[in-house]
Amino acid sequence: MKERTAIIPGSFDPLTYGHVDIIRRSASLVDKLYVVVGSNSSKQALFTAEERKEHICSVLSDLENISVEIWDGLTVDFLKKVGSPLIIKGVRDSNDFYYEMEQATANKILFPEHETLLMAADPQLTFVRSSTIKEMVRFGADVSSIVPEVVNRALIEKYKQLT
Amino acid sequence: MKERTAIIPGSFDPLTYGHVDIIRRSASLVDKLYVVVGSNSSKQALFTAEERKEHICSVLSDLENISVEIWDGLTVDFLKKVGSPLIIKGVRDSNDFYYEMEQATANKILFPEHETLLMAADPQLTFVRSSTIKEMVRFGADVSSIVPEVVNRALIEKYKQLT
Amino acid sequence: MKERTAIIPGSFDPLTYGHVDIIRRSASLVDKLYVVVGSNSSKQALFTAEERKEHICSVLSDLENISVEIWDGLTVDFLKKVGSPLIIKGVRDSNDFYYEMEQATANKILFPEHETLLMAADPQLTFVRSSTIKEMVRFGADVSSIVPEVVNRALIEKYKQLT
Amino acid sequence: MKERTAIIPGSFDPLTYGHVDIIRRSASLVDKLYVVVGSNSSKQALFTAEERKEHICSVLSDLENISVEIWDGLTVDFLKKVGSPLIIKGVRDSNDFYYEMEQATANKILFPEHETLLMAADPQLTFVRSSTIKEMVRFGADVSSIVPEVVNRALIEKYKQLT
Amino acid sequence: MKERTAIIPGSFDPLTYGHVDIIRRSASLVDKLYVVVGSNSSKQALFTAEERKEHICSVLSDLENISVEIWDGLTVDFLKKVGSPLIIKGVRDSNDFYYEMEQATANKILFPEHETLLMAADPQLTFVRSSTIKEMVRFGADVSSIVPEVVNRALIEKYKQLT
Amino acid sequence: MKERTAIIPGSFDPLTYGHVDIIRRSASLVDKLYVVVGSNSSKQALFTAEERKEHICSVLSDLENISVEIWDGLTVDFLKKVGSPLIIKGVRDSNDFYYEMEQATANKILFPEHETLLMAADPQLTFVRSSTIKEMVRFGADVSSIVPEVVNRALIEKYKQLT
Repeated sequence: MKERTAIIPGSFDPLTYGHVDIIRRSASLVDKLYVVVGSNSSKQALFTAEERKEHICSVLSDLENISVEIWDGLTVDFLKKVGSPLIIKGVRDSNDFYYEMEQATANKILFPEHETLLMAADPQLTFVRSSTIKEMVRFGADVSSIVPEVVNRALIEKYKQLT
Repeated sequence: MKERTAIIPGSFDPLTYGHVDIIRRSASLVDKLYVVVGSNSSKQALFTAEERKEHICSVLSDLENISVEIWDGLTVDFLKKVGSPLIIKGVRDSNDFYYEMEQATANKILFPEHETLLMAADPQLTFVRSSTIKEMVRFGADVSSIVPEVVNRALIEKYKQLT
Repeated sequence: MKERTAIIPGSFDPLTYGHVDIIRRSASLVDKLYVVVGSNSSKQALFTAEERKEHICSVLSDLENISVEIWDGLTVDFLKKVGSPLIIKGVRDSNDFYYEMEQATANKILFPEHETLLMAADPQLTFVRSSTIKEMVRFGADVSSIVPEVVNRALIEKYKQLT
Repeated sequence: MKERTAIIPGSFDPLTYGHVDIIRRSASLVDKLYVVVGSNSSKQALFTAEERKEHICSVLSDLENISVEIWDGLTVDFLKKVGSPLIIKGVRDSNDFYYEMEQATANKILFPEHETLLMAADPQLTFVRSSTIKEMVRFGADVSSIVPEVVNRALIEKYKQLT
Repeated sequence: MKERTAIIPGSFDPLTYGHVDIIRRSASLVDKLYVVVGSNSSKQALFTAEERKEHICSVLSDLENISVEIWDGLTVDFLKKVGSPLIIKGVRDSNDFYYEMEQATANKILFPEHETLLMAADPQLTFVRSSTIKEMVRFGADVSSIVPEVVNRALIEKYKQLT
Repeated sequence: MKERTAIIPGSFDPLTYGHVDIIRRSASLVDKLYVVVGSNSSKQALFTAEERKEHICSVLSDLENISVEIWDGLTVDFLKKVGSPLIIKGVRDSNDFYYEMEQATANKILFPEHETLLMAADPQLTFVRSSTIKEMVRFGADVSSIVPEVVNRALIEKYKQLT
């Protein structure tokens, strides 16, 4: 038997209970799971990649088989670097589905030996997108039921600085 | 490291190159893969469960880590029987996606410890559904580019008997 | 101010917590809400219309402004009979949405003075369709987290009789 | 310049103003248009293929470049018979779209030299499906705004006979 | 009987016949309807919030139970301010539907006592989005069949100033 | 018989094998096909309109009945200029479909005498969007299986200049 590994790439800006659920469920299916925080410079991020990595490490510190890493590059290049054949992505609706289908096809072209598997997101936990959360916080809304406590505090702090 | 297993349930009536692709790709991701042929009595099948099992075994005889089994019951009961936590399903479009989302939710209620992962079907191989293939063969169409040779011969034989 | 009324038509075969949620939320928005149990003879129902009416009355006995009625006919004819201008329907996904869009258009043609409003179903409560529930019960699955207690007991009883 | 021809296959059971619109618009784009009435024996038709052909001929008698024909077989075999490379189909929503995508793919396999082009149906004219119209008429509803006069009279006549 | 109120939030930039239709139909279902013009500073608006309010007031001056208001903030905060439990939104297709589903979920989290009801937009009136209208006008196209006369004049005036 | 013409508008930034396939298939259905390269100034293009025209001419030099033209304006104005009644657009999934439905409706309003026909894109050739290709190249990925050789070389050259 060989070691089974997978990666979960994302921007996690901010980390939601939906992300936490997908990571927990995925971690139980493999021997080692890499959570890959994209430091994509083209999207305007609220938290730095380092802050987002800290949030994930803090909330999921009980998971022994995950490794949280920051990556600026193609997802398939991360797969090659760590020698993993598998991407796991959470999906909520058909918009997510078609987006991930296209990403998977593009990644297949770049790295035919890999696979992308989609995990149905828990609708209760993930119906609110990260972009909507940022909008909600901007207007002073309480999002403590959507994001972990550490993220909630960081969001409040961040918006205090901005205003 | 523990053994990683998964199941692929389906009716495979008939087995297509699309199914073959999903099975091959899934088999490479786990230590053992169960291909579970549903002997669902409510749907009118063209081939018997035994015939469908034979087709899969014949076409995929080179895969050493798959086990093809016939099952008449809930999918989650098969998972429990073999002690596997994972269902893999191929999906092509948003209709498939929502159907599998509902199945996954129902299965979560019945067996919370399992997961369902969706694999994007190769669009070239799987755009034609099994039901359409049966319709095509009924009118004498050549489907040898959609189904494996052994299935093609069996289809021709089957329709000869029916007419 | 005039009395605001609405109707919720459905087959409720069986009544789920999802239906219960939609009815409760709708009841709070109008002065009187009619829950209209379709006795559609073309679909093969598990429970009789009378049984389904009893389930609704039993589970929602605390709602003072609802009236549960059995109806065999066009939904718009019920609207005309009780003088209500409004249909409320729960929707979960785009399949439901397009189905209800078509029904609403057909009903507009038959009765232009009415409106159909769609209410987003709570994803947690309603992802499992009534048809799937029947399938689940048929295989002896526990659906007590999806349907009210009285319906659960009736389902178990019903399947005992059938086997 | 060669003669440009196309076919519009369908069951037209019953013919709606939506069908009439698609046929008229398609007829203006080609030199000759074949309207192909499927005499598909597996679906339970309300009108016979001959009656449906008569409805189309009657309503569209002013179109000089259409030919209405009854066909029991694969659509691609009709294309081959008349030497036409083109199927035109009306589509209303994503369900229609995916259905026609699959049909087009299946037909490409059977007859690679042909094309299928999709025409966006006028939403006002075609939101009500033929199957819904049959249901509406069964309950005595007036569908004169959805189907041509000759079809409306035939529907009323047909349901009189059935009751 | 208590007073039944609802709100219709939107940017109305510009107001279309589709918006007018949704507002009229909604106004007939409640005792009082608030039309809430978002003065969202992040989106680049063509007309100022005041201009958009004037367009709505001018076109719908015959509706006695509507109140048009400008709001810069969360929609749920407007609901709380006026004591209304209900948002009505027009939807055209599955993209709109999923967007409104997410908004409704986010709003439920912020204000659980409210409801969002979706009204199927008249496909004939609303298939062209406000953003497309702006593009059309920019190229000198006549959009008088899509927007009310007063808006049409204002659009022409606005683009004269810009060029 | 009159000459049958059509246009294929697009940004072709960059031209993919998917575009090439749609153009080839469309060219066989009409007497003359105009490929209309949009020089839309609002979108940030990678290649100039002239470069994109050159790519199309170079790759499709064997097609005798196509004419590649640059156009800055409404698509319907190009139709009027060349006297063509037909737009052909490739579509891959329901997102494309709804986008093209809205464009077709807007164009119908501007020019009722024209038609838009949708051609199902070959899923194998077109699942990767032009925007994704640009992202892939930016990270040094090999896209030679998605774009023609001449475009591939131009992409590599372009990104060399940018870095």
